[in-house]
Amino acid sequence: MSRTDNGHVAVIGLGPGGAHQVTPEASEAVAAAKWFYGYGPYVDRLELRPDQVKVTSDNREEISRAQAALTKAAEGERVAVVSGGDPGVFAMAAAVCEVIEAGPPEWRDVDLTIVPGVTAMLAVAARIGAPLGHDFCAISLSDNLKPWETIEKRLDAVASAGFVIALYNPISKARPWQLGKAFERLRTILPESTPVIFGRAAGRPDETIEVAPLSQADAAQADMATCIIIGSAETRVIDRGEKAALVYTPRFSGPGPGVST
Amino acid sequence: MSRTDNGHVAVIGLGPGGAHQVTPEASEAVAAAKWFYGYGPYVDRLELRPDQVKVTSDNREEISRAQAALTKAAEGERVAVVSGGDPGVFAMAAAVCEVIEAGPPEWRDVDLTIVPGVTAMLAVAARIGAPLGHDFCAISLSDNLKPWETIEKRLDAVASAGFVIALYNPISKARPWQLGKAFERLRTILPESTPVIFGRAAGRPDETIEVAPLSQADAAQADMATCIIIGSAETRVIDRGEKAALVYTPRFSGPGPGVST
Repeated sequence: MSRTDNGHVAVIGLGPGGAHQVTPEASEAVAAAKWFYGYGPYVDRLELRPDQVKVTSDNREEISRAQAALTKAAEGERVAVVSGGDPGVFAMAAAVCEVIEAGPPEWRDVDLTIVPGVTAMLAVAARIGAPLGHDFCAISLSDNLKPWETIEKRLDAVASAGFVIALYNPISKARPWQLGKAFERLRTILPESTPVIFGRAAGRPDETIEVAPLSQADAAQADMATCIIIGSAETRVIDRGEKAALVYTPRFSGPGPGVST
Repeated sequence: MSRTDNGHVAVIGLGPGGAHQVTPEASEAVAAAKWFYGYGPYVDRLELRPDQVKVTSDNREEISRAQAALTKAAEGERVAVVSGGDPGVFAMAAAVCEVIEAGPPEWRDVDLTIVPGVTAMLAVAARIGAPLGHDFCAISLSDNLKPWETIEKRLDAVASAGFVIALYNPISKARPWQLGKAFERLRTILPESTPVIFGRAAGRPDETIEVAPLSQADAAQADMATCIIIGSAETRVIDRGEKAALVYTPRFSGPGPGVST
């Protein structure tokens, strides 16, 4: 790989998991980089050449990983920082921007490219129908980076206003109770029958997609690899007999045209 | 193409515009279909074989297009319905589900596959930094399918609660005043300096990305092909001299750890 004057960082979204959901743009960005920084399981999805180098780190070390990547790039190297899904959604793109703002002036001169990807909620939604078919939001349920009170306030605001809600980072060993608390809270606002989708490892061989009514949604159905989609009061379930039910949110809200047949 | 017993519909997301952002899964789904239904400009992005057939229709004919696709599939044919971006985000997947629910029983027996794609807000965000780096929402500004009062209520709710806001369908000839009204409303809630990103045709040769503070954001900067991202009070701009400024929303909110250098 040739050196560039000021170095280069590509923050690359690898999509939800399968190689068939990695864009050509992401594959080209991987081919063009020499140094690969990321959380181990994401970096390990790459099939690299002998001249390419993996530098893996723990899931929670986003800032130190971004600093290491910028430091390497500022030496004139071509660096990749890899994320699952889309790098701009609760992933490495914001961490890289944070360290550029706080770091030495030469880090602002590094060429920065961000390569988007299919984020988890889109992959999960596609497996079940069209639950994100109308206004929706994405919330990280991690209270490592914001107070739990802020999360509660946001859940109340969007559920009351009719948004479908996608929850990222729903649960972990260090955060065992937050998801159950979120369901409890949403039960005071949304109908009992509101569909809740638990999408785990969407697009990977071990994928599971489960649907439960909000009244029965159980935090034990989720783990770190789960993205959860909670419908609005307008989200519907279509029974298809032997085929899996479809879950979708109509494009209209309130008194709408609907489908005339 | 071989016929299948009950027919097959693939609702395919072609990504924001460039071939480099079409997933291999989407390309394979295109190769496997015979009949292609969609809005003209999306269908025209496909390079089809002589045995494949295009059936294009106007942007606003989503329900009749979905009905035509299901009718054809129920004859035992392999049908594709194509969307730009992701088909589950303000696009054809919900319309297909709507007509399946309202249609004849045999439409529920049609095999349905939805192929996710990179939706516009992710592509726009990637071009400018990481504006969607924390909790965010997506709102269609079209009041064809919901009352304008619902849109205002939703804008108020999410802006007050600290979400970044992505606006789809911001403006059209038939809906000329709504975007300006939305900016007016948001100016009463968010700081004047809040960054507003106008991302047009992201990923295509005619791409333009502009940033303005909310106080100066002008609806005339947008057209039908624009996706708009409005920051939260925490969204930041990093000046990089000759390089384009970066816009990002930190991963933390309120009293957070930040970056210690």
